[in-house]
Amino acid sequence: MPDASVIIPAAGRGERFVRAAPAGASPATKVLADLAGQPVLRHTLRRFLDVAAVRDVVVAAPKDRLDEVRAAVGDAGSGAVPVTVVAGGDDRLGSVAAALEATDGGTEVVVVHDAVRPLIRPAVIEEAMRVAVESGAAVVGRMVDHTVKRVGDRHMVLETVPRQGLWLAQTPQAFRREVIARAYARRGEVVGPVTDDAQLVEAMGFEVAMVAGDAANFKITTPEDLRMCAALVAAGWPFE
Amino acid sequence: MPDASVIIPAAGRGERFVRAAPAGASPATKVLADLAGQPVLRHTLRRFLDVAAVRDVVVAAPKDRLDEVRAAVGDAGSGAVPVTVVAGGDDRLGSVAAALEATDGGTEVVVVHDAVRPLIRPAVIEEAMRVAVESGAAVVGRMVDHTVKRVGDRHMVLETVPRQGLWLAQTPQAFRREVIARAYARRGEVVGPVTDDAQLVEAMGFEVAMVAGDAANFKITTPEDLRMCAALVAAGWPFE
Repeated sequence: MPDASVIIPAAGRGERFVRAAPAGASPATKVLADLAGQPVLRHTLRRFLDVAAVRDVVVAAPKDRLDEVRAAVGDAGSGAVPVTVVAGGDDRLGSVAAALEATDGGTEVVVVHDAVRPLIRPAVIEEAMRVAVESGAAVVGRMVDHTVKRVGDRHMVLETVPRQGLWLAQTPQAFRREVIARAYARRGEVVGPVTDDAQLVEAMGFEVAMVAGDAANFKITTPEDLRMCAALVAAGWPFE
Repeated sequence: MPDASVIIPAAGRGERFVRAAPAGASPATKVLADLAGQPVLRHTLRRFLDVAAVRDVVVAAPKDRLDEVRAAVGDAGSGAVPVTVVAGGDDRLGSVAAALEATDGGTEVVVVHDAVRPLIRPAVIEEAMRVAVESGAAVVGRMVDHTVKRVGDRHMVLETVPRQGLWLAQTPQAFRREVIARAYARRGEVVGPVTDDAQLVEAMGFEVAMVAGDAANFKITTPEDLRMCAALVAAGWPFE
C-alpha cells in the first residue's frame, strides 16, 4: 500500500442541520456535534488513523472556528501521523485546495473524505487507495437500486430516469497525487457546478474508477441523520 | 382523510439477502427475518394499522410460503381492519395486481408499500394519501443530494450526471383507486422495465406528485441493512 495524505473538508456551515436543531442546542458546525460522547470529526479521524498507509491528515475548518476545530481534534494526531487544521476556503473546492497545499508532498496518494461521514470502514478506505494507485482516481459510491424520477415544478414527476449504470458518489475519493494536483491547478477551467473532487478529475480527461461502499457511510446532513449515526454506534457498528 | 386499502408486496425472494446470510441462519424470505423479536413484516403492518384511514391490508406472499407469512401476520388484523394474505405473482407487478383484486373495492385510495421498509412513519403515509387524493398519485421519495455518476465497464466513471430535479423513489406510493386500477389493467402496454407502480401511472399520462420521506425509510436488501434497522429500533426510532 502506498503512503497517503488525507484531506478532511470540514468548513461547511451545515445550514440544514443548524436550522433543524432546537434553538440553543446546536453547535456552530455539524462536525462538532456530539456523537457518542465525542465530536463527529473525532470519529471520522479515528477511521483514517486506523489505516496504516496514512502519513498525515489535514482538516480544513471554517476560518472563524479554527480554535474549536483544533480543540475537537485534540490529541488525535501523533508525531508519526500529524493532524493539522488549516483555514478552509469560501467553498468546498477552495477548502480542499487549501488543505492540499498543507499535505505532506512526499505521499503518493491523496484521499479526500467528508468530515460528516464518520461511519467509513478502514477496509473501504484501503480499497479506494489501492484502486487509485491502479487507475489514477477512485470514488467510493453506492449503485442506485431505487427507481429514479426527474421532478419538476410543484413536485410533479416528469419522468422515470433509466437507472442503468447510475451510482451515488460518496467519499472517500482517492487520487494519485499528481492527478489531483493537476485537476486542482486547472479547476478554474471547469464550467458549471462542481460537487465532488472526482468531477474535476473527469473534466481533465483522467480515468476515475468506482468502488462499492457501505450503506452506513451516509452523510450527516440533518439532526435525524445524526440520531441514526448515534444509534449505529450504540449498536456496535461496524458489527463485525 | 379518505378510506384506504393497503397493499404490501412481500413475494420477493431477497436473493442478495439470502446469499449474504450465514448458512442456515437465514429465513426463506427477508420479510420473515427477525427485527427486535418480531418478523420485519409485522413491524411494517403495525405502521399502517396506526393510520386511522386504513380499512384493509392485503399482503402478497410467495406462493410456497403462504402459511409462514400468515403465521408472521398472526393477529395483527382485526374485524374492523382485516389483514389478508394472498399468493403473489411471478414478479412485483403480478403480486400487486393479485393483491389489488383482493382489496376492499369500496375504498377511495390504494397505498402500495414494500414489506421490507419497516421504518415508515404514519405521518408520511398520511401525507402520501392526502396528496394522492389531490393529484391522483403520490410517491414518497428522497431528493438526490449526492453527486451522481454514470458508470460503465470495469466500474469506470463515464460522466457526472446533473442531479437537478432527481429524486429516489421509495414507497409508500398512493393512488386514487380508479387511477391504479386503470394503470394495472393496461400494464401490458408499457414497454421496457417497470420498477415501481408510479411508473405505470406515468406511462398512462396521469400526474404523479412527489412527497418527501425520511432517511430511515430505507429498504432492507442486505443483512447490513437489517442490522441498521435493528439498531434504529433499539435506539427508540422514530425518536419523537
